[in-house]
Amino acid sequence: MGFLEHIHSPDDLKKIRPESLPEVCAELRAFLINCITQNGGHFSANLGTVELTVALHYVFDTPNDQLIWDVGHQAYGHKVLTGRRSKLASIRSKNGISGFPKRDESLFDAFGTGHSSTSISAALGMAIADKLSGNNRAHIAVIGDGSLSAGMAWEALNNAAQSNTRLIIVINDNRMGIDPNTGALGSYLDGLQSGEPNFFSQLGFEYVGPDDGHQIHHLVEQATYLKSCLHPVIWHIRTVKGKGYAPAEAEQTKWHAVKYVKIRDEESIPETRFQDVFGDTLVELAEQNTKVVGITPAMPSGCSMNNLMQRFPDRAFDVGIAEQHAVTVAAGMAANGLIPFCNIYSSFLQRAYDQVIHDVCLQNLPVIFCLDRAGVVGEDGATHHGLYDLAFLRPIPNLEILCPSGADELSSAMRYAVEHRQGPVAIRYPKGDASNVKGTTSTFAPGSYSILKEGKSAVILAAGPMALVAQQALDGTDCTLIDIRFIKPLNHELMKDIVHRYHIVITVEDGCRDGGFGSAVLEQLSDLGYTGKVHRMGFPDEFIEHATREELLTEFGLDQTGIRNAVDQLINPSI
Amino acid sequence: MGFLEHIHSPDDLKKIRPESLPEVCAELRAFLINCITQNGGHFSANLGTVELTVALHYVFDTPNDQLIWDVGHQAYGHKVLTGRRSKLASIRSKNGISGFPKRDESLFDAFGTGHSSTSISAALGMAIADKLSGNNRAHIAVIGDGSLSAGMAWEALNNAAQSNTRLIIVINDNRMGIDPNTGALGSYLDGLQSGEPNFFSQLGFEYVGPDDGHQIHHLVEQATYLKSCLHPVIWHIRTVKGKGYAPAEAEQTKWHAVKYVKIRDEESIPETRFQDVFGDTLVELAEQNTKVVGITPAMPSGCSMNNLMQRFPDRAFDVGIAEQHAVTVAAGMAANGLIPFCNIYSSFLQRAYDQVIHDVCLQNLPVIFCLDRAGVVGEDGATHHGLYDLAFLRPIPNLEILCPSGADELSSAMRYAVEHRQGPVAIRYPKGDASNVKGTTSTFAPGSYSILKEGKSAVILAAGPMALVAQQALDGTDCTLIDIRFIKPLNHELMKDIVHRYHIVITVEDGCRDGGFGSAVLEQLSDLGYTGKVHRMGFPDEFIEHATREELLTEFGLDQTGIRNAVDQLINPSI
Repeated sequence: MGFLEHIHSPDDLKKIRPESLPEVCAELRAFLINCITQNGGHFSANLGTVELTVALHYVFDTPNDQLIWDVGHQAYGHKVLTGRRSKLASIRSKNGISGFPKRDESLFDAFGTGHSSTSISAALGMAIADKLSGNNRAHIAVIGDGSLSAGMAWEALNNAAQSNTRLIIVINDNRMGIDPNTGALGSYLDGLQSGEPNFFSQLGFEYVGPDDGHQIHHLVEQATYLKSCLHPVIWHIRTVKGKGYAPAEAEQTKWHAVKYVKIRDEESIPETRFQDVFGDTLVELAEQNTKVVGITPAMPSGCSMNNLMQRFPDRAFDVGIAEQHAVTVAAGMAANGLIPFCNIYSSFLQRAYDQVIHDVCLQNLPVIFCLDRAGVVGEDGATHHGLYDLAFLRPIPNLEILCPSGADELSSAMRYAVEHRQGPVAIRYPKGDASNVKGTTSTFAPGSYSILKEGKSAVILAAGPMALVAQQALDGTDCTLIDIRFIKPLNHELMKDIVHRYHIVITVEDGCRDGGFGSAVLEQLSDLGYTGKVHRMGFPDEFIEHATREELLTEFGLDQTGIRNAVDQLINPSI
Repeated sequence: MGFLEHIHSPDDLKKIRPESLPEVCAELRAFLINCITQNGGHFSANLGTVELTVALHYVFDTPNDQLIWDVGHQAYGHKVLTGRRSKLASIRSKNGISGFPKRDESLFDAFGTGHSSTSISAALGMAIADKLSGNNRAHIAVIGDGSLSAGMAWEALNNAAQSNTRLIIVINDNRMGIDPNTGALGSYLDGLQSGEPNFFSQLGFEYVGPDDGHQIHHLVEQATYLKSCLHPVIWHIRTVKGKGYAPAEAEQTKWHAVKYVKIRDEESIPETRFQDVFGDTLVELAEQNTKVVGITPAMPSGCSMNNLMQRFPDRAFDVGIAEQHAVTVAAGMAANGLIPFCNIYSSFLQRAYDQVIHDVCLQNLPVIFCLDRAGVVGEDGATHHGLYDLAFLRPIPNLEILCPSGADELSSAMRYAVEHRQGPVAIRYPKGDASNVKGTTSTFAPGSYSILKEGKSAVILAAGPMALVAQQALDGTDCTLIDIRFIKPLNHELMKDIVHRYHIVITVEDGCRDGGFGSAVLEQLSDLGYTGKVHRMGFPDEFIEHATREELLTEFGLDQTGIRNAVDQLINPSI
């Protein structure tokens, strides 16, 4: 470390002579490789943007000039150069720095990111604000080619091209999202030539590039020119994910993120993950029924749909980062007789909320949504937690909502959805461990639930994998524990029975307390004239930061101890 | 009427000789003008697509070949030619046919539409399904240039270009949405020339056009060619909204839709509309504070932001049909110090749900959302009702949700939001009448509410304009009536007071019962240990069809009679 240890801000970087910048890049790259392989985090995207990061901070007057990293998982180098080098080892850990840019964390993080394709809109809004107030600084959005496939990036381009603002859109073209990119735009970008008119220039942008994104001297030269532009510019650079680390260049999807160093990794890998059960069951169902197909918006490896892609490549569709399109293309497929499994991470389904309502549920089309990463996801933090799905899906007519508690129930729920086919079904499950609850059969039928334990003092209704936590928590108590399975419709006979049999009802879910599963139970019990106590356990009305899933469940009283304490307190308030 | 009265299906149309098609078009246009000016409905878009509609049904084998009308308000001619001529006078009325294509209504309506930009995704999904099952029919999506600006259309183009399906995308280029289109794409489309490569052809589509969309013979000729294509094609036609009706060609926005014939119109126009109050107040606030700006996704006349556009053209932003971008551009503006009013219809905000959570509320940015067309909207029906906003917004941390009950409260709420600026605020109000409740002051402060009436038998908590309905309903009863104003946060002291003072709590809202305002009240009362009755009034868990707002409130027991009956029944169940 010759240079890097002396860089505490971009001001320090600017003092270095241009001819030494390749060394700075080499040091930054080495630091990232060492730090991320030791401590975990997003890997390859950060190696791909080393030179860009150095060039931007070398040339532009950050933080006055505003820099927005789309998605933001490629901003580790940016964090290192902006005073957070010593904190990088803590990234994505409880109380450590965030894995994404975050306004609260640094003035250099002009706009928080996490979900893709927001950067152009945000930068344009900031540029308009500055224009109105006479502040003539630069606004830079760095966006990957994969993120450009998402609709909101297009909406922003259409609006920005003629905006007359000081806006620089850097297209970081590496032909990858987490998985290789799909879609026509990638081929189009491949064909672009310097100096020739193209779609971007015809929309009204100045187009600069394409440039090799790893030639630091040329990047600095181009950035210096861009800094002089007072109109919207697109700067197209080509980079390699994992650049400079041979294993990552060779296997880009595998090296998208690194979980931990080996020893922690072995501790934390669960035997069976929900996503594996999804991937395996989907292949089984597809083998049994030729109508079964799969759709994923750019997450084939993340949701394990790559199993289906290998087995039946014609029946697995990676539509790119395009959640809205993914949902409505599935609706079209269902309308013409297919049985589409549309797998979208819970927090990304927020992107397609209207399509779920308007295109699928309103027409009662039998699309099967599989919502991976539901509940708290852990290290990715606030942008990625899937805490709201139960609350936002529950009001939608026609939609059934299922919460399998473990591997067997997920598999059964998927089988049920294929056989049922009366309308849309959403199946939600978390990241990670799919251990089964003990002592139950997992057959899904409309309104089926599973009684895991019987008692008299109270009834605990647990959603999804919280059933297993509750099962471990309630040992030795005189409570009834029910794995509810169907969040919607709730089993009406069960609710009537509860009204007559219990004075204390406790609901447990790994989602937001307000409007979620517990709220659904409360509504039904209220309608039935119940006058006992309903205690709803879930996450409070605040955004939840990053930490492991286990740490977060503990922090918010949703682990064994928390549940047991709450139950004991309710049954015997005097203790 | 020489031809039209004999056309009961496209089969009848196909029997007509080509040389008579101009007469068919003339008759169809005259029929539409007469019918819509008499009975109301979408007007200009339908006159613009007369020739296209005739050409498509003349050439293609509908309904086997599948035809999807994007947005769908231009499908009246399609309805006339597919057996629904005699029903067109009933369009958008209670028990009449829908103003949009609807799968339940006709086999010719291949996919239901209403919100924009869904057609390409749906058609692609259907085409993929047919390809897998060996059904080689054509799939046609007709989409306006305005709808192409929305992100999901772009996501679909990116995915469709290389799909190898029998997909025809007709770009109906009229340079208009409801208002004139904005954005760079429009200029780009203007410059396209026949036979030259362009962005669409470079993505992988065959590009056909541009063609004059009112030359029926040429359209038939081109459609005949398109029918022979077995790969994805874009057919670019240029049309004129309001074609053939001089007043509509001259004033396209005004003639986008026709409400009723004169005599009904006079009866139904309210003195003060919520949207006018919004438009006027926004100008006042902008005059007082230079930081105030307005953003609308293609609805300046619909939400009355055209007032601001005229007064301060540099501070009003029509971003095109682009709700996602609208929200995040507002977030960027707020991050850099502006006070953005982002006006989006309630049901269209579903398109930007993730942006509200991820870009605005997570960063606690003080964007002010004004949600027009909340509750039931009337004639536009199921696709456009704003029934879910309270339920889907309520779980989002940091967001305040305000329901003004009339003109004075809307104005005060907007003023409060500008002065408050602690975080994001959503203000929701319905279409139409903004009459004030009687006997209240309308000052908004955090958690403020208004007691409209005091009594002992029960407390009625009414949200927004339901307060006025409830006020009229409760005359002569011994009830307390509260205009709640703040859905979130609910006034905690008020809730505690209610627990001690009342055995019966009734909530009234013009939104879905499940998860909405009543559910929020129920949750808080439950947490406070309330054991009395909570009766939640709102819309049930089903999609609500079209009818006037008044008819729908009556049908679902939310008019004066319905509320009074419910209250009487609860207070004195023996009656």
